[in-house]
Amino acid sequence: MTLERANSSRKWRAGILGATGAVGQQMIQLLAGHPWFTVAELGASERSAGKPYRTAVHWNLNGSFPPAVGDLVVKAAVPPLECDFVLSALDAGVAGPIEEEFARAGYPVISNSKNHRMAEDVPLVIPEVNADHLDLIATQRERRGYTSGYLVTNPNCSTVGLAMALAPLERAFGVAEVFVVTMQAISGAGYPGVPSLDILDNVIPHIGGEEEKVQTEPRKILGRLSGGAVKFSEMKVSAHCNRVHVLDGHTESVSVRLRRSASLAEVREALSTFAGEPQKLRLPSAPAHPIVVTEDSDRPQPRRDRDAGNGMSVVVGRIRPCEIADFKFTLLVHNTIRGAAGAAILNAELLAERGDLPHRDRVEERIAAQNRA
Amino acid sequence: MTLERANSSRKWRAGILGATGAVGQQMIQLLAGHPWFTVAELGASERSAGKPYRTAVHWNLNGSFPPAVGDLVVKAAVPPLECDFVLSALDAGVAGPIEEEFARAGYPVISNSKNHRMAEDVPLVIPEVNADHLDLIATQRERRGYTSGYLVTNPNCSTVGLAMALAPLERAFGVAEVFVVTMQAISGAGYPGVPSLDILDNVIPHIGGEEEKVQTEPRKILGRLSGGAVKFSEMKVSAHCNRVHVLDGHTESVSVRLRRSASLAEVREALSTFAGEPQKLRLPSAPAHPIVVTEDSDRPQPRRDRDAGNGMSVVVGRIRPCEIADFKFTLLVHNTIRGAAGAAILNAELLAERGDLPHRDRVEERIAAQNRA
Amino acid sequence: MTLERANSSRKWRAGILGATGAVGQQMIQLLAGHPWFTVAELGASERSAGKPYRTAVHWNLNGSFPPAVGDLVVKAAVPPLECDFVLSALDAGVAGPIEEEFARAGYPVISNSKNHRMAEDVPLVIPEVNADHLDLIATQRERRGYTSGYLVTNPNCSTVGLAMALAPLERAFGVAEVFVVTMQAISGAGYPGVPSLDILDNVIPHIGGEEEKVQTEPRKILGRLSGGAVKFSEMKVSAHCNRVHVLDGHTESVSVRLRRSASLAEVREALSTFAGEPQKLRLPSAPAHPIVVTEDSDRPQPRRDRDAGNGMSVVVGRIRPCEIADFKFTLLVHNTIRGAAGAAILNAELLAERGDLPHRDRVEERIAAQNRA
Amino acid sequence: MTLERANSSRKWRAGILGATGAVGQQMIQLLAGHPWFTVAELGASERSAGKPYRTAVHWNLNGSFPPAVGDLVVKAAVPPLECDFVLSALDAGVAGPIEEEFARAGYPVISNSKNHRMAEDVPLVIPEVNADHLDLIATQRERRGYTSGYLVTNPNCSTVGLAMALAPLERAFGVAEVFVVTMQAISGAGYPGVPSLDILDNVIPHIGGEEEKVQTEPRKILGRLSGGAVKFSEMKVSAHCNRVHVLDGHTESVSVRLRRSASLAEVREALSTFAGEPQKLRLPSAPAHPIVVTEDSDRPQPRRDRDAGNGMSVVVGRIRPCEIADFKFTLLVHNTIRGAAGAAILNAELLAERGDLPHRDRVEERIAAQNRA
Repeated sequence: MTLERANSSRKWRAGILGATGAVGQQMIQLLAGHPWFTVAELGASERSAGKPYRTAVHWNLNGSFPPAVGDLVVKAAVPPLECDFVLSALDAGVAGPIEEEFARAGYPVISNSKNHRMAEDVPLVIPEVNADHLDLIATQRERRGYTSGYLVTNPNCSTVGLAMALAPLERAFGVAEVFVVTMQAISGAGYPGVPSLDILDNVIPHIGGEEEKVQTEPRKILGRLSGGAVKFSEMKVSAHCNRVHVLDGHTESVSVRLRRSASLAEVREALSTFAGEPQKLRLPSAPAHPIVVTEDSDRPQPRRDRDAGNGMSVVVGRIRPCEIADFKFTLLVHNTIRGAAGAAILNAELLAERGDLPHRDRVEERIAAQNRA
Repeated sequence: MTLERANSSRKWRAGILGATGAVGQQMIQLLAGHPWFTVAELGASERSAGKPYRTAVHWNLNGSFPPAVGDLVVKAAVPPLECDFVLSALDAGVAGPIEEEFARAGYPVISNSKNHRMAEDVPLVIPEVNADHLDLIATQRERRGYTSGYLVTNPNCSTVGLAMALAPLERAFGVAEVFVVTMQAISGAGYPGVPSLDILDNVIPHIGGEEEKVQTEPRKILGRLSGGAVKFSEMKVSAHCNRVHVLDGHTESVSVRLRRSASLAEVREALSTFAGEPQKLRLPSAPAHPIVVTEDSDRPQPRRDRDAGNGMSVVVGRIRPCEIADFKFTLLVHNTIRGAAGAAILNAELLAERGDLPHRDRVEERIAAQNRA
Repeated sequence: MTLERANSSRKWRAGILGATGAVGQQMIQLLAGHPWFTVAELGASERSAGKPYRTAVHWNLNGSFPPAVGDLVVKAAVPPLECDFVLSALDAGVAGPIEEEFARAGYPVISNSKNHRMAEDVPLVIPEVNADHLDLIATQRERRGYTSGYLVTNPNCSTVGLAMALAPLERAFGVAEVFVVTMQAISGAGYPGVPSLDILDNVIPHIGGEEEKVQTEPRKILGRLSGGAVKFSEMKVSAHCNRVHVLDGHTESVSVRLRRSASLAEVREALSTFAGEPQKLRLPSAPAHPIVVTEDSDRPQPRRDRDAGNGMSVVVGRIRPCEIADFKFTLLVHNTIRGAAGAAILNAELLAERGDLPHRDRVEERIAAQNRA
Repeated sequence: MTLERANSSRKWRAGILGATGAVGQQMIQLLAGHPWFTVAELGASERSAGKPYRTAVHWNLNGSFPPAVGDLVVKAAVPPLECDFVLSALDAGVAGPIEEEFARAGYPVISNSKNHRMAEDVPLVIPEVNADHLDLIATQRERRGYTSGYLVTNPNCSTVGLAMALAPLERAFGVAEVFVVTMQAISGAGYPGVPSLDILDNVIPHIGGEEEKVQTEPRKILGRLSGGAVKFSEMKVSAHCNRVHVLDGHTESVSVRLRRSASLAEVREALSTFAGEPQKLRLPSAPAHPIVVTEDSDRPQPRRDRDAGNGMSVVVGRIRPCEIADFKFTLLVHNTIRGAAGAAILNAELLAERGDLPHRDRVEERIAAQNRA
């Protein structure tokens, strides 16, 4: 922990945008008892604004929400909010301009929404993989005229698991081609989301827009930041995305062609020893092992493995040679934790640790001082 | 219909080996009201032998078994049986020697079991794809000294769907590489099969021995028979096999690399116009369209499409370019009908039509005549 | 078949109100190939009006709709429609006034909606149970000033199964008290209906308004029509309604206290020999056995038994003494067939057979004649 | 905590009989980190004996077993074992004589198996309800000649929830009649247990022997101990037991007729304030509220509420008047925790607290001393 953060005796006040939705609920649940962050503000649609959270929300997670959050009055998702930064779980239909408005108003915006992910000057970050992409924030501020605010995003839920598994392979051997077939959980579609009449005793072999994300986002995440821009990885990704009858946890069958030859043992070693900034910095939500390699022949399985590392580890199993590409394996990622709410929170922790998450009062003091000067 | 068969006023008497198992039950259900075949004998394990079928079977299909079959007394699965041919749905643990015994005793054995599929002199047949491989029967008889009996097999349930979709592509353009991920129904594992504790809210990313079959069998089916032997197709197949929470119907995400370039329209055309001997001969179980191409963006789906063509059609959808190979698509095959029981019955119908399924009494007369001679 | 109907060479033209909804779809599927009725008109919301059915509908049943129906252009659900009668599958939110408007405009309205079920002058009919209640039509016309039109309703999906099982017991022994717990299928909630996030690995112990219907409707159905009014049965019903993870088929655990003592054999006999007008008249949708009594110790089961009698039979099993009331048993009813679409169609068939379903042109001739007179 | 136990600085060593089965696994998971008990011995069938637990067990719970337990070598389930008491999760097929053998050999046997539950001299205990029934141990020892050993049992998983909800009603108002319909989770059947082919899209309206247990056991639990014998409660219970497609958590629809009249508020008050010895003694596994009353109109639900009180609380909702009996409600009990493994552990904690669970070495010292004397 840096000296600076250690000196900060106060917790950061988080504002949750889209607080009543599925990802917003998961953010609230994950922040219960968080050592650094406290839920201070809840932003949602006009329909919910003005109501205490307990009546505004249709809570879908198991158990119930933290009582203190239940008492908070939901506000409209417009600045100002009494918080140091915002975590955005807004619907893609509205997230774009609202997030920009918050960034312009001086708030760090750490978003799970897709809207700004592929913007040239917006970091798309998995802390273990490309923490250095956060340096794009400077470019972004300059280009957009943001002062203390900025936009940082995390990837799509299926992308997170894939990009994490590819990262150590890319570093060690280079990745040329990736075939991936996802079997995605229903919670990925939010609430009410997938009608039960569509998924009981069924598979739906299509998820709107998903394949494009899975094919594109990993190339940005695994790209190199250079000269204020991300040079995308050259890897090719082909995705087939399916919805299956699972509550939480996306399972992915993956075949990869590498650029340099590698043995099975080397691949396994690269995956199982993978770690990054969150582990080095011991961030509160960082799992000890971002990738857990299982030797059981029939694992990972979503119900049995999704909670590995409190839902923050990607579990990889069945690593074996591929008859066409070089290697193939199965991976599992908890889509609402590592794939969404936890991803955003880990980004926030990393930003706090880097000193990119000032307390709002200090920001305001500084602005006041600048205005006086 | 050939003159010979038309003259035959009598139905063929089928013996069902493994009659109490899941595939055996499906055979019995499909043969109810069959225009050519009648269920005459039921063979099962010693435990069931001697009991009427209604008490021996734990019927797992919807509804109930045909009353007339319920009255049949189950016999041990050893020759002789009072029937013209046997359909084998025996467990792989016992099928090998029992099927050979029946073939040696003069019975055409049409088997769904895996044991003899890859034997050099045993045809592995999908009637629409490689009806000509039945000519291997002559080689087989010669090599093994069988007289009127022989072994014919149909492929694994996942293979059937894949090989049918590949066949028109192989013919028209050549297939070089196939990447396939299956999402297989629980009925594929028989009864009691998959424990509910393993599959509720879950995916199991492993099915013992399945990937090997899916990678190997299509190469034999799509191979060329020449000089009394099948020259395997050179295509490479890489399979990932998963069990999902679906009752019936295997869904497969497939990417293919072709040998010659083809347009999307040509691929769609090749698939949707595919037909073979069963359609030409109007075999009773032949679907009008062995491959049904759907244009709906979220189909095929197992629950909604598995009964296409009475479960005998493979449904293909989402045909689109692949970012790495040439094309990708989703296919669906009813695993217990086209993928097992119906596959064997269609083989039997084809054999009957070819004149390879003599009535047993004629066989016996001929043998008696030969003995007298 | 009566002489009159036999002489009618023409089919009746049915209009389906609420044609794009779940029950409307089921009506369309059941009427495919119907010997008496043809789907002539489709009424739905303004949003769908003007579109061909194939584009207006999100078809949720397995397979697809009949091609001819797909070509019909959906109209707004307002009279006049070119049909002889209407089957209403309208949402309860709009059904009330629309159905009255059609009745007033001269159309027989045979409705599955709840709105008019409990109206004093509207018959609530299960043809096997209380066909005589259709005599209320005369009262209704008189009171409301309807000419050739009228309203006839069928019960709630859970009620149908219960009332059918109670009817023979009421007739033979009198029913004093009924304790019933339902385990209802998701299709009962329509589409999109129950979110998968609510029902996967779950039971929902509440269905809005359902318990009231189950407790009240059987008392009207089993009541006696006398002096132009239905005198309700005195039986008391207590219901607990639960939603379970089943596609189709409501299962109900029932305990009954009888008014006169009966042996287990007498109860079984009463149930298994139950039949009514539809069986006597051989109506096209009438099952041979309205109640199928099963002796299997673990039946009825929704997936395995819901299609008994093409979905029109109620299956009753586990009949045994109750430790508190007199007898207890489990029943199963296919909720979208016997419990909804099939119930309305059987009512229409009964009305046709009674001569209460004149062809519209004759109605118009008669009206014209009256106007001339 | 009593002085005696506080002075004991050592943990009790538990032996788990049936350690590889579903309930045994749950016991092991619940004892991970237990403040009083440590898993010292694992007993199982001869087939498993001699193997380390990690290879002997097919772990079915989420995550994995505690590593230390994985290293323990499984022994045959025969005395002696190096432990202070045994928790039995043995199959009913073998539990009877094995448990007696351990009791005779001086071990307190705290069993989840059904075999001895209804024996006259064996306490059938839910600590909150009938802790005083443990006084039967003295009678039992006397009658059977046991020295330091004895048998204590907990009820069937469905009974636990029901008896806990009835207990405060029985105390406050007397319970005359109970109608109960259970919707039971698949985990109640152990592993492999319910085949997925039987339960997907289905309900099974029968669980062998279950209704008898639910109808009988509550009468013993709610009976009064007097003169060394339990006088059963006079209440009548009628049960319908169903298996539904839920992983964990039995849902029960209950109607009760009381002996004295009570208002809805009084019933709710009696249920929500219910507490007993475990709460008074602050036993480690005791939930703060043994019964949690929910006001939400559609709760309790198994997936969302089964973990209330770490799986040790029974959740009761929808309390309302019954049209036939006096009141009706829905209850939920976590069948493998409060209904099995947790029930046995709570019994063990209560016995420890009462001083009925001496450390084995003291027992042996005392026996040695007696032998010397």
